[in-house]
Amino acid sequence: MNKIKQVLTKQRQNKDYKDLYIIKIGGNVIDNSENLYRFLKDFAALPDFKILVHGGGKVATQLSETLGVKAKLVDGRRITDIETLRVVTMVYSGLINKNIVAQLQRFGNNAIGLTGADGDFIRAKKRPVKTVDYGFVGDLDKNSIKPKNLISLMEAGFTPVFCALTHDGEGQLLNTNADTIASALAVALANYYHTTLVYCFEKKGVLKDINDEDSLIREIDPKHYEELKKQQVIHSGMLPKLDNAFSAIASGVKKVIIGHSDDLGNIKQHQPFGTHLIDN
Amino acid sequence: MNKIKQVLTKQRQNKDYKDLYIIKIGGNVIDNSENLYRFLKDFAALPDFKILVHGGGKVATQLSETLGVKAKLVDGRRITDIETLRVVTMVYSGLINKNIVAQLQRFGNNAIGLTGADGDFIRAKKRPVKTVDYGFVGDLDKNSIKPKNLISLMEAGFTPVFCALTHDGEGQLLNTNADTIASALAVALANYYHTTLVYCFEKKGVLKDINDEDSLIREIDPKHYEELKKQQVIHSGMLPKLDNAFSAIASGVKKVIIGHSDDLGNIKQHQPFGTHLIDN
Repeated sequence: MNKIKQVLTKQRQNKDYKDLYIIKIGGNVIDNSENLYRFLKDFAALPDFKILVHGGGKVATQLSETLGVKAKLVDGRRITDIETLRVVTMVYSGLINKNIVAQLQRFGNNAIGLTGADGDFIRAKKRPVKTVDYGFVGDLDKNSIKPKNLISLMEAGFTPVFCALTHDGEGQLLNTNADTIASALAVALANYYHTTLVYCFEKKGVLKDINDEDSLIREIDPKHYEELKKQQVIHSGMLPKLDNAFSAIASGVKKVIIGHSDDLGNIKQHQPFGTHLIDN
Repeated sequence: MNKIKQVLTKQRQNKDYKDLYIIKIGGNVIDNSENLYRFLKDFAALPDFKILVHGGGKVATQLSETLGVKAKLVDGRRITDIETLRVVTMVYSGLINKNIVAQLQRFGNNAIGLTGADGDFIRAKKRPVKTVDYGFVGDLDKNSIKPKNLISLMEAGFTPVFCALTHDGEGQLLNTNADTIASALAVALANYYHTTLVYCFEKKGVLKDINDEDSLIREIDPKHYEELKKQQVIHSGMLPKLDNAFSAIASGVKKVIIGHSDDLGNIKQHQPFGTHLIDN
């Protein structure tokens, strides 16, 4: 651990930070085996250092249905009861995570599949019950990620692949939003690497007109973001993603990109893609 | 990696090997939450270095039944078809493995849950089809485990927790016997650590009379083993376990213990327990 500290201190003194890419994928990549294959091949080819964070996709919902575990919603918000936690643990950290890892190994990337419990990498707090009991849902705070363990894993040559599960340090696994995990990882590691956070989704980026892929907005700063919200160009599902992104930038993350998983290869070619979120 | 090589070379020159315990647990521990709690508390308290290997237990069978995935047997041997592989991946590497990891973290042990695909730690070859097609079953050979990656993980402060899944390096996960994984890990690491392999099961060890826990055989060497087999004191399920054990010893593993999971605490107290398998 001391050796790592020395290396990092030296890097910082020399302003010799290494690049780190944190890539988040969701259902549109995971649920389509061709998209997933293409994405994992591109991800494996990215230079070190890199971290993959994946959400759940449709498989968990399908398994829940088959097992007769009913989706519970209160005020339109999804509740993670003990049965649902069981299903997501099996699907996220088992089926999806380990198949991703096996594929990355095939492409020559030394991946290692993780929840936040593994290596104590990500701790969360069970969401307090106010009007709604969300069940086994974990919220992150600024102390959730202790970067040292994670850095020592990466410096030992492994590529972390995180699913959307954390733990409370008391033996309890917790369901945690994958976008938030990606953003928290980027913030925690921003002091040690030139960190770029990439949210992959089904569009080329943030679009002026959601039906026109040519209407890509190449760059958004916080002021521009406020305007786009007022004009309702950005709304609903994109809001938490962009809020996460700007909060990451405010905490030292160098760059946040929102773009299509098919364009990930552009990173290696040093070609811009997607929407870049930048500081003022 | 070079740093690790230096450390190990130095250790070997000084005959200053560190101890390594590889503990294998099966259904009798996993299926009983009280047994599991007790075991994990004792395991967490063991000094470094240590590795846990766990089998599947009844949960996979139960999930298969609920999902209508029928157990397929040919000549009394279990077949891992694609549906069964899906179930064991969810249960072994998801549900069981990650709950064990979360518990170990609670007890202060920095566990990290793994399949053989993670970190490329254990490669296997899909069992060739002769008279029977066993499906997605992986067999290990002497090249299956490359110790360097695993050592660097342990030296970085993590405790590996392996479930009974490996991969073929081509993207395919494979179902692999947990006893064999434990034995192969012990053999691969025997050159680098004073390695003790412990098989936990439901008895105090190998018994002269299976109904009498006081008839524990404290020590067996290969010659004695041949006699016990002839006398049919050892038969059926114990044979592959002991064959694995003696093959590990023949390959440099210092000690193999077969005993009850409740007696694991004896290691810390330097008290003998179970049956010790030793070289001639």
